[in-house]
Amino acid sequence: MIPLPRSLSEEIEVSGHIIDSLILPKVLDCITSNNGTFHIKQIAVGQSRHDPSFALIEVQASTQPTMDTILNQVADHGAQPTSASDCRQVKADIEGTFPEGFYASTNQRTQIRVAGDWVEVDNQEMDCGIVVEPATCKARCIPMTEVRQDMPIVVGHSGVRVFPLERHDSGNEFGFMSSTVSTEKPKGAMVRAIARQLMEVKQTGGKTLLVGGPAIVHTGSGPFVCELVRQGYIHKLFAGNALATHDLEQSMFGTSLGVHLKDAHTAQAGHEHHLRAINRVRRCGSIKAAVQQEVIRSGIMYECVKHDVDFWLAGSIRDDGPLPDVTTDAIQAQRQMREAIRDVTFCLMVATMLHSVAVGNLLPAWVTVVCIDINPSTVIKLGDRGSFQTTGLVTDVEPFLRALVQEVNSKSENQP
Amino acid sequence: MIPLPRSLSEEIEVSGHIIDSLILPKVLDCITSNNGTFHIKQIAVGQSRHDPSFALIEVQASTQPTMDTILNQVADHGAQPTSASDCRQVKADIEGTFPEGFYASTNQRTQIRVAGDWVEVDNQEMDCGIVVEPATCKARCIPMTEVRQDMPIVVGHSGVRVFPLERHDSGNEFGFMSSTVSTEKPKGAMVRAIARQLMEVKQTGGKTLLVGGPAIVHTGSGPFVCELVRQGYIHKLFAGNALATHDLEQSMFGTSLGVHLKDAHTAQAGHEHHLRAINRVRRCGSIKAAVQQEVIRSGIMYECVKHDVDFWLAGSIRDDGPLPDVTTDAIQAQRQMREAIRDVTFCLMVATMLHSVAVGNLLPAWVTVVCIDINPSTVIKLGDRGSFQTTGLVTDVEPFLRALVQEVNSKSENQP
Amino acid sequence: MIPLPRSLSEEIEVSGHIIDSLILPKVLDCITSNNGTFHIKQIAVGQSRHDPSFALIEVQASTQPTMDTILNQVADHGAQPTSASDCRQVKADIEGTFPEGFYASTNQRTQIRVAGDWVEVDNQEMDCGIVVEPATCKARCIPMTEVRQDMPIVVGHSGVRVFPLERHDSGNEFGFMSSTVSTEKPKGAMVRAIARQLMEVKQTGGKTLLVGGPAIVHTGSGPFVCELVRQGYIHKLFAGNALATHDLEQSMFGTSLGVHLKDAHTAQAGHEHHLRAINRVRRCGSIKAAVQQEVIRSGIMYECVKHDVDFWLAGSIRDDGPLPDVTTDAIQAQRQMREAIRDVTFCLMVATMLHSVAVGNLLPAWVTVVCIDINPSTVIKLGDRGSFQTTGLVTDVEPFLRALVQEVNSKSENQP
Amino acid sequence: MIPLPRSLSEEIEVSGHIIDSLILPKVLDCITSNNGTFHIKQIAVGQSRHDPSFALIEVQASTQPTMDTILNQVADHGAQPTSASDCRQVKADIEGTFPEGFYASTNQRTQIRVAGDWVEVDNQEMDCGIVVEPATCKARCIPMTEVRQDMPIVVGHSGVRVFPLERHDSGNEFGFMSSTVSTEKPKGAMVRAIARQLMEVKQTGGKTLLVGGPAIVHTGSGPFVCELVRQGYIHKLFAGNALATHDLEQSMFGTSLGVHLKDAHTAQAGHEHHLRAINRVRRCGSIKAAVQQEVIRSGIMYECVKHDVDFWLAGSIRDDGPLPDVTTDAIQAQRQMREAIRDVTFCLMVATMLHSVAVGNLLPAWVTVVCIDINPSTVIKLGDRGSFQTTGLVTDVEPFLRALVQEVNSKSENQP
Repeated sequence: MIPLPRSLSEEIEVSGHIIDSLILPKVLDCITSNNGTFHIKQIAVGQSRHDPSFALIEVQASTQPTMDTILNQVADHGAQPTSASDCRQVKADIEGTFPEGFYASTNQRTQIRVAGDWVEVDNQEMDCGIVVEPATCKARCIPMTEVRQDMPIVVGHSGVRVFPLERHDSGNEFGFMSSTVSTEKPKGAMVRAIARQLMEVKQTGGKTLLVGGPAIVHTGSGPFVCELVRQGYIHKLFAGNALATHDLEQSMFGTSLGVHLKDAHTAQAGHEHHLRAINRVRRCGSIKAAVQQEVIRSGIMYECVKHDVDFWLAGSIRDDGPLPDVTTDAIQAQRQMREAIRDVTFCLMVATMLHSVAVGNLLPAWVTVVCIDINPSTVIKLGDRGSFQTTGLVTDVEPFLRALVQEVNSKSENQP
Repeated sequence: MIPLPRSLSEEIEVSGHIIDSLILPKVLDCITSNNGTFHIKQIAVGQSRHDPSFALIEVQASTQPTMDTILNQVADHGAQPTSASDCRQVKADIEGTFPEGFYASTNQRTQIRVAGDWVEVDNQEMDCGIVVEPATCKARCIPMTEVRQDMPIVVGHSGVRVFPLERHDSGNEFGFMSSTVSTEKPKGAMVRAIARQLMEVKQTGGKTLLVGGPAIVHTGSGPFVCELVRQGYIHKLFAGNALATHDLEQSMFGTSLGVHLKDAHTAQAGHEHHLRAINRVRRCGSIKAAVQQEVIRSGIMYECVKHDVDFWLAGSIRDDGPLPDVTTDAIQAQRQMREAIRDVTFCLMVATMLHSVAVGNLLPAWVTVVCIDINPSTVIKLGDRGSFQTTGLVTDVEPFLRALVQEVNSKSENQP
Repeated sequence: MIPLPRSLSEEIEVSGHIIDSLILPKVLDCITSNNGTFHIKQIAVGQSRHDPSFALIEVQASTQPTMDTILNQVADHGAQPTSASDCRQVKADIEGTFPEGFYASTNQRTQIRVAGDWVEVDNQEMDCGIVVEPATCKARCIPMTEVRQDMPIVVGHSGVRVFPLERHDSGNEFGFMSSTVSTEKPKGAMVRAIARQLMEVKQTGGKTLLVGGPAIVHTGSGPFVCELVRQGYIHKLFAGNALATHDLEQSMFGTSLGVHLKDAHTAQAGHEHHLRAINRVRRCGSIKAAVQQEVIRSGIMYECVKHDVDFWLAGSIRDDGPLPDVTTDAIQAQRQMREAIRDVTFCLMVATMLHSVAVGNLLPAWVTVVCIDINPSTVIKLGDRGSFQTTGLVTDVEPFLRALVQEVNSKSENQP
Repeated sequence: MIPLPRSLSEEIEVSGHIIDSLILPKVLDCITSNNGTFHIKQIAVGQSRHDPSFALIEVQASTQPTMDTILNQVADHGAQPTSASDCRQVKADIEGTFPEGFYASTNQRTQIRVAGDWVEVDNQEMDCGIVVEPATCKARCIPMTEVRQDMPIVVGHSGVRVFPLERHDSGNEFGFMSSTVSTEKPKGAMVRAIARQLMEVKQTGGKTLLVGGPAIVHTGSGPFVCELVRQGYIHKLFAGNALATHDLEQSMFGTSLGVHLKDAHTAQAGHEHHLRAINRVRRCGSIKAAVQQEVIRSGIMYECVKHDVDFWLAGSIRDDGPLPDVTTDAIQAQRQMREAIRDVTFCLMVATMLHSVAVGNLLPAWVTVVCIDINPSTVIKLGDRGSFQTTGLVTDVEPFLRALVQEVNSKSENQP
């Protein structure tokens, strides 16, 4: 390769588990694949898994645009110029849109430099912009639809730094599981790890969010979720019209999609059951009212009402009815979910592709997420969409939840 | 079994391909599984596949409720008492709900008896009620949300008759494919059958609806859909924000979800592309405006705008943005789709579970539907949800659409 | 259609659940699709699910070959000419092959007519020929490889009658499950049904065959199988080198494919464990010897040896080692399996495509088979290969077997 | 953590793409997870993707067993003590088994030190031992079954060094594809890359091995394989009885598993076709004889015979027949396959789990492998079994092969 004239040089530094978490290779790759070159001026490798490493790297590039591209890209891996500048802000000119060149957020912890100080970005969420409060210099992620005229929006990468989540940071115990989407793993060990997580969240006053699909009810797993709600392991529920509908159908008719849960026989005219269930709850006005009027006497929604577990039901175009509690507007539903996830510490996604991807979009990278589905493609898709922190478990919902409840019960008995 | 006292007897008749299409066994099964008994008074079996058969059956039951249950259930298989009565109508008492006991519609052709006459039910759709126009005695299916106070709604099964679609009725050539959801079938034969269907619909002035998911773009299949649009084989498009977004991303950046379609390499910072694409189109005001301003110069949405193919984009909670053309309210989106499917004769569902199930819910049973997905569970789920007329084809979208375009091209060349 | 000259006419009769089990439509379809015509001379439809029906049908065809084709095909559905003739036998001319035109067997109960008498065919198995013992007139199915010179082999369909298994014949309780390969079914009901079947087989002195794949061990389900063996619910085991190897690896090292079953962590150098396990057992001479020498002290193979459960390990080209007990020749292994299945009444196939299809090929249609796999395609494939009697259950092996053991335990406690 | 007394110290060195290919993190992880500590005495990071890096590391451990464990494990990642010793050899004491403590081979390039010299290991294959020829000091991998009394077998890790394949070594262009097992990737780009590989192998005199399953025939893809054989792109074929059988069935009857490939209709009595095909070829004596006698006139096997493409058919317990060319003993079949792969440079695995895993076991890591299957679990399983170099492509066989043939044809036309 012909050596490039090196008119430009910048010094960047990167620290953390840069070797173990692949950060250093990625940074060096960014440089060379953009036709830059590098010289490692200093490197110190941490002794143990918990000791950080550090590298000081000189970057050379032939043109300023090349150098800018490199600096922008390495910033996403946490590398910062030793000579940093403030972030650039441009006022929004059109309602509901960002200015061209806006900085697009990741789900990693982020800071921006304003007037020489590094400011933490609140409400961290991927695929948003960053708005700065001019008076207070506070910064937060903002989705496109929420942008109002004249809001100052961060543009470009300079003055923005990201702290990529490191492998051992996460503080969760699922690292061992996340390697591949295989069905051939010891399932008992995984169930025990999830049970421990549920118990720890409960004991430490955290919040567990259950994101669930209707297969929970179809497979007859409703009673296990009820048990987890009654015991205080589930603090919030995100679902769609279908989970709630079939749960109510089950309560009123003993069937889900017309199939008897007790013996798996198909009920005559059972395909009408869910429709009649929805209609009755609409006549009551709300799920809560239906519980109070004793139209509903069992099931997941019943237990949520009885144990003050808040639920959010988001609508979709395949819904029958829908139930009166369903938020049918997607933007409105996203707004509600965004508020509701602020204090979530553990998220259990069970048998729903749509809701899992939706919630994965909203969560910051440091929230522990476990995604359970019998279909490997759901788990694969969640990873493809950027929810790296997700631990996928390919298993069958019913026996999984059955084992989880047993595990939680046996553990809590053994506690002082 | 101890013989039941047979105080009650009714005569029912059933005709059509009652043996071949399993109607007779189902009717007899309804009777006996409800503790009724039967006597076949007359049976005539059609000679060829196209000749109808006929059976006259005496039903006996010990109580009136048993007899009512039997008559209601056999009605769904097209069996009618020889002594029919008018349907019963009850006025809606609460906005947006049906009266208790409402008749729940199927997606099969249905008639109701009003003042002694059998009246065709319009807008046939599963999981709806039936409303009767008092002045004109016209009847149509109506979803729960659209019910207004005092509308007369059909209650119970009496006076309602259903004409189940028979195996050889469908007039389509996909019967051979629908047996099982297997990946091990001759794929060329299936592609040829779908190509013939597309060409026939075009020649006979029918309407083909494409229901598509974003994998069309991710897999690099966009150009094949563009070709089908340009040649006039696709007349309507239903999709979500994702298909349109990644199509526009592809047009602006050459990537889909940040992956270059030309060489499958991942673009640096490519995960931002779709967000920038949405932002630009929001700045233009609409997809059409973006085409006119030459912000978009290629792709599926571009071809739809250029060739006057109407599209409907329905929102979901996992959407980024969304694009300005997206209908974010699910009920509103269903209303639009309901209107748009009225004249559809052939529906091709490609790589989308959510939209496929949603559209399957809306279509009457006699519209030919082919559902293509690489994931067998999508096809299985569609069947589970009652869209019996669907032919499922488990294959990979890109090479499938590539072969379909070649087939259509080679056939149209050979035509006079 | 122009009426055919009807020079030929035959009368056939068919009885059993001919309407319910679709036999009549299939017979009529055979006739008309071969350009024959029919006249139903007599029909009697059974009153209840357990009453047989009967039909007497006149078949007309224009030529003798057409008539022969029709009679051959309807015979597979159990329809027989009222004027039957003896079966035709031809002596095998080449070792290991049938004569051209040989009758190819199904897995349904079959009789042949010899010297005017209907003789039961023994060792019923699909895809075989039928050999007749000249001296005794006894008949049995014989695979191609076992044919010896001069054996009398049945040729053609005449004088052969088949008794198709009817829906309600099977005497098993899995009918409700077999409709579709869906993951969204009530799993508890299915587990209970399988538990009942295991208990019934044990109580009535039947034999349960477990056909298992290595995922049983990988997922940590070995202890559940051990429990079933100890309690006398499993009487025979068919598996490959992999199940036994990883079971022994687990016993010696606590790992399966190098993954610790206790905590799901990957062992350092764990990929060598299975190889060292095989080597040690080869050094002992056999699995039994290794148990006796206390090289193996736990696991499925250990329990089989201790509880006199016979096992057959069949080799395949992906085997490491293999273990000394493995039969590496496929023909030899088939011979052993054929002998071993003779008295099996219930077959549980768990997580193995290769062995499930192999055993499905050997079993007669009246043996109850349940096939469990997390991958729907295994279950679909088994159906495609002609094993109609198989009930498929798409679930995860570990939690399924865990629940099955609990169900069996709780039930046996409640017994007097 | 309490500091360990550091009585022992060894210096190891590692070179190559140790940062980019994750080798350095793995080596450091081995040390610390075994309770050793390290000090990086020297590190030099290569400038570009093709420049090697180098590290000199001092390892400390408190006991000799700990130090031995560490040195053994890091050797698998290519790290060697700067003070190396000869490998240890022990004579085999029992036919067909290794001595305890035998070195278990990987599929990576390996050398052993004999009398002070590093000797290349021939016939590199995972899960074997290493035998040394005393006279010549030549070394080669040997499977357990082939061990004879008194052969000198390498024991332990010392004096063995491994050269792990590095990311950019492989010389293939599929690196971009191997990240995840996703169905949502640009398929055209992948087909083009495979076509380029096929053409390059042909032009450079390499050997392409096709490993194929029967779905090739069932899906109607046979003609595409025929075309690749005729054009000289396929040089060897590994398959089972099923692929050959259904290919011959197709040639004789136009069906595969009884389904007509032309129109996908099920043939009457079609389930017998494959059996009749096998029987006829058995009567001929071999596939080649059947081609010469014109019993077979088309199809994959026909083209292989006509174009001198060698094929190996390995038996399995699910085989009907089998065909006379099938090697029914698994050990014998492995031996044949082992010989046949020696000169293979590119391996295309299509729609077969059993044969793909079997061949993956035999191939050294530097042979480029592409595995095509519509079922993601096949591709996932191949990776789980240690075949790291495999690029997986989840797609449908028929349209994939159709597109591949077109791509190869269009490219070869454009060549001078």
